[in-house]
Amino acid sequence: MSNASIEVLISEVGPRDGLQSIQSIMPTANKELWINALYQSGIREIEVASFVPAKLLPQMADAADVVRYAKTFPDLTVLALVPNLKGAEAAIQAGVDKITIPVSASAAHSLANVRKTREEMIEELKKIIGFRNAHAPLVQVEVGIATAFGCTLQGMVPEDEVIWLAEQVIEVGVDEAGLSDTTGYANPAQIKRLFKRLRNAIGNKAGAAHLHNTRGLGLANCLAAYEEGVRSFDSSMGGLGGCPYAPGASGNVVTEDLVFMFEAMGVNTGVSLEKLFEAREVLRLGLPGEAIYGMVPEAGLPKGFSKKGSI
Amino acid sequence: MSNASIEVLISEVGPRDGLQSIQSIMPTANKELWINALYQSGIREIEVASFVPAKLLPQMADAADVVRYAKTFPDLTVLALVPNLKGAEAAIQAGVDKITIPVSASAAHSLANVRKTREEMIEELKKIIGFRNAHAPLVQVEVGIATAFGCTLQGMVPEDEVIWLAEQVIEVGVDEAGLSDTTGYANPAQIKRLFKRLRNAIGNKAGAAHLHNTRGLGLANCLAAYEEGVRSFDSSMGGLGGCPYAPGASGNVVTEDLVFMFEAMGVNTGVSLEKLFEAREVLRLGLPGEAIYGMVPEAGLPKGFSKKGSI
Repeated sequence: MSNASIEVLISEVGPRDGLQSIQSIMPTANKELWINALYQSGIREIEVASFVPAKLLPQMADAADVVRYAKTFPDLTVLALVPNLKGAEAAIQAGVDKITIPVSASAAHSLANVRKTREEMIEELKKIIGFRNAHAPLVQVEVGIATAFGCTLQGMVPEDEVIWLAEQVIEVGVDEAGLSDTTGYANPAQIKRLFKRLRNAIGNKAGAAHLHNTRGLGLANCLAAYEEGVRSFDSSMGGLGGCPYAPGASGNVVTEDLVFMFEAMGVNTGVSLEKLFEAREVLRLGLPGEAIYGMVPEAGLPKGFSKKGSI
Repeated sequence: MSNASIEVLISEVGPRDGLQSIQSIMPTANKELWINALYQSGIREIEVASFVPAKLLPQMADAADVVRYAKTFPDLTVLALVPNLKGAEAAIQAGVDKITIPVSASAAHSLANVRKTREEMIEELKKIIGFRNAHAPLVQVEVGIATAFGCTLQGMVPEDEVIWLAEQVIEVGVDEAGLSDTTGYANPAQIKRLFKRLRNAIGNKAGAAHLHNTRGLGLANCLAAYEEGVRSFDSSMGGLGGCPYAPGASGNVVTEDLVFMFEAMGVNTGVSLEKLFEAREVLRLGLPGEAIYGMVPEAGLPKGFSKKGSI
């Protein structure tokens, strides 16, 4: 299947968002097997690691090795999360195609998550963009606006502040800004309203939807975002992950269920569900004892299911 | 809150669909406490029982008593499921406001579920309508077209057959026909397509959406139906239930999560989430040891949550 026919991009965040949120440390060899299996299923963008001090997140100590492995797949976009300039330097040196930086719309969450105000994060972004422009102009820089739909610490996050922040990050040279429901607070009406405002504010630099299933609305929110024109979605195999700094928030949208929804609707993700289920078994073997979620893998595909909305 | 301001009707099916699908038998007194708690939360339509031989479904042996209790709430629509004329006679005699009759769009499921062909079910409906017209002209008769989105026995169910069946049941005098995703096969695109065709075929006699969460798409499908104009939704507190005759299918949409979705969107259900959670505890006490599902009750309401889409 050619990439040209892909209508929705599934960006798998499990190897980063998932693995850094659990206690177990997956050995590098298992991470590589999993990334390979994800690639074989048709996934073409993977957030493979975060570049943070190993003493804070020992699960990510092998980030550079994992990036180098992932880069052996020529048409895979290799993404890493970085919280600051130092992380960006390391990620770029390791050879990533794209870095993603979380910037919290909630003032309270920003301080809790990265110990910086939002304004300080904008200053950090300027340095990251400066470094990128000087040393690796082809590396893409994405910002995920965290807590865009509400915050477990401060409650409501004003929509004007979310849009202001998106405009600021684009202003300093970031390539795209997406919206993250870090806390699982979003509802479909809010999703449509805010992604519409985002597109009005920053045009085609509006980026991915990163949505959680904490309150069961993950797929409904993805549907709403799709209907509003979003064509790039973060999700995590087996629903691994969530933000450890947002108390009570957990549960990324499950990749397997998200791919099923789109494929059943006749929206091409370029991903084979059967091969995705094989990748799930590779994940399971690499994380013995950890809970792996997903409704479609447990229920099985519908009898006679085929892509393109034939059921 | 007045009924006039309700934008979406939540029809609670747990006391029937839920309780008949599990092994435990809830005592009549607990059913009454639960129905009372559901009413206090603002629910105004409840499927309280099915009228079937007690030797087949001992959980429903007290159907007439439960109906009589539910009828003590003057503005509650008391609904019972009946599979045939004999059940309809008993339900009407007990005093229901409305009966609902499942009619399978899948030929294979029809035989497995009620041992009748679809054509034989149409004949049965004629008898039920005849009885209703003669003895209880104010009782509403609803048909739920089961397996409307696919069947675990035969796989695909042609959409033309679903619409043909809906036209037939309206033709013989049924008041409304809704669509049921008995097997959890539906996807949002299919939901929109089929509910649109249903409305085109039978106009304002198009009835409720009865959707399952078997593959995690329950709320996304409810959202799609809402966007297509559906304003009546079946759901089950705690996700109790599913059809025991569709192998592998289970998992009604969870009332608590569905009400949360609509209320968060600013769509008024007339239901208080806090009081709904109290009713959930009443259910739990009545069914010790049974699994009670629901994402929102487990995660809690968002900090600062209020109705009308304020988050």
